[in-house]
Amino acid sequence: MSGSMHDSSVGTLILLRHGESLWNAENLFTGWVDVALSEKGKGEAERGGQLLREADLLPDVVHTSVLRRAIATANIALDVADRHWIPVKRDWRLNERHYGALQGKNKKQTLEEFGEEQFMLWRRSYDTPPPPIELGSEFSQDGDARYAGIDAPRTECLKDVVARMLPYWEAEIVPDLRAGKTVLLAAHGNSLRALVKYLDRVSDDAIAGLNIPTGIPLRYDLNDALEPLKPGGTYLDPAAAEAAAAAVANQGR
Amino acid sequence: MSGSMHDSSVGTLILLRHGESLWNAENLFTGWVDVALSEKGKGEAERGGQLLREADLLPDVVHTSVLRRAIATANIALDVADRHWIPVKRDWRLNERHYGALQGKNKKQTLEEFGEEQFMLWRRSYDTPPPPIELGSEFSQDGDARYAGIDAPRTECLKDVVARMLPYWEAEIVPDLRAGKTVLLAAHGNSLRALVKYLDRVSDDAIAGLNIPTGIPLRYDLNDALEPLKPGGTYLDPAAAEAAAAAVANQGR
Repeated sequence: MSGSMHDSSVGTLILLRHGESLWNAENLFTGWVDVALSEKGKGEAERGGQLLREADLLPDVVHTSVLRRAIATANIALDVADRHWIPVKRDWRLNERHYGALQGKNKKQTLEEFGEEQFMLWRRSYDTPPPPIELGSEFSQDGDARYAGIDAPRTECLKDVVARMLPYWEAEIVPDLRAGKTVLLAAHGNSLRALVKYLDRVSDDAIAGLNIPTGIPLRYDLNDALEPLKPGGTYLDPAAAEAAAAAVANQGR
Repeated sequence: MSGSMHDSSVGTLILLRHGESLWNAENLFTGWVDVALSEKGKGEAERGGQLLREADLLPDVVHTSVLRRAIATANIALDVADRHWIPVKRDWRLNERHYGALQGKNKKQTLEEFGEEQFMLWRRSYDTPPPPIELGSEFSQDGDARYAGIDAPRTECLKDVVARMLPYWEAEIVPDLRAGKTVLLAAHGNSLRALVKYLDRVSDDAIAGLNIPTGIPLRYDLNDALEPLKPGGTYLDPAAAEAAAAAVANQGR
């Protein structure tokens, strides 16, 4: 598909990664554990909303995961942008990657316990999930009402996230874009990486080096084949995005 | 329709009136002006969420107006009750009564300027709206994107609120109840009075004396004819509701 055949733009997609949570601040693996934003994280969401407002980039609809750090990020940013009243859709398929048995563990201790190679494999390989979390353990989600009736994973690699996220993209987000809407997607490091991998056709290897900074809206204008007009999209605050991406890459060290 | 024919209950309805806004605190007529909750109002929403949690009365879906004081009330209460992840529906037909030309005016000054009789007619009569708000004036909503494409009122009496709220009730809330869901409706003094008038068959005269306290969930169990099993419903904190209702009745004096 050549870009020249698809120059007409559909709606605009805005990706927003939630800001610091209480467990980010403590350097713990979070995954599906439903941790709240820290005060810093709330401030990042406010800043995200200000950037939307200043760019006059106003969402018509918002999609979030079912985790409160993404939900609160959307609520705060939309309130600041005066778009708190738009329609809302939530779905577990936008959740963070399930971190399996690592959920609740300290990143630094995990690095020391398992060594650099295994640690980086679990964190950054495309298709190697951590060991599955034990059912009934402290940070497992079995019995959580929000996952009733779904075949919830007990661990995931990024490839698994792509596999469960893309059907939601096709079924719920693409129709909003094709209707010409500006769509805000408030989600997580890995569910957003999964989508960016798909949109920008990033290879399984190259996606390991791609970090999406928190709290800075990332705008994608798409053609009618849903290809980005500008690969990689455009951050609303490019300088801050560059600085933040470098910091994220060093996380856990 | 006798109650005995309709003993099987459909889903449960929970009404939640938003807490104090910044303009409630200043004693101004608000209506459709999109004023934020005060700190006290946020605390009321938290308390509402605690009451839901303590009663193990957990909503499966939430309906709100498009005004931030109801939206924030729902967001805060649901977060406290650990139900922040449920589906959300928003609609202007759940908005507060449009207060027409009184929007933005001080209640005490309005009472002094127009006298007790006219003041109470505007506040409490069933079918006498205030004068319509002037288009383009400071507290008018013309040009507000959230009302694009709807024939938005420029003033309303309670009868008008009933007329625009009931179609939303029938089309959007009743199907959720018939599906057996526990439905949270986070809204406003007059949109909730309009619904209670309908559910409890309160007369046009008697509705004037009915106040719904803020921040205290009001539970209605309905039979399959959508009639309350207990007229008037059940407040989750009956003593607080009684005290608060008395205070609301004296508002503006």
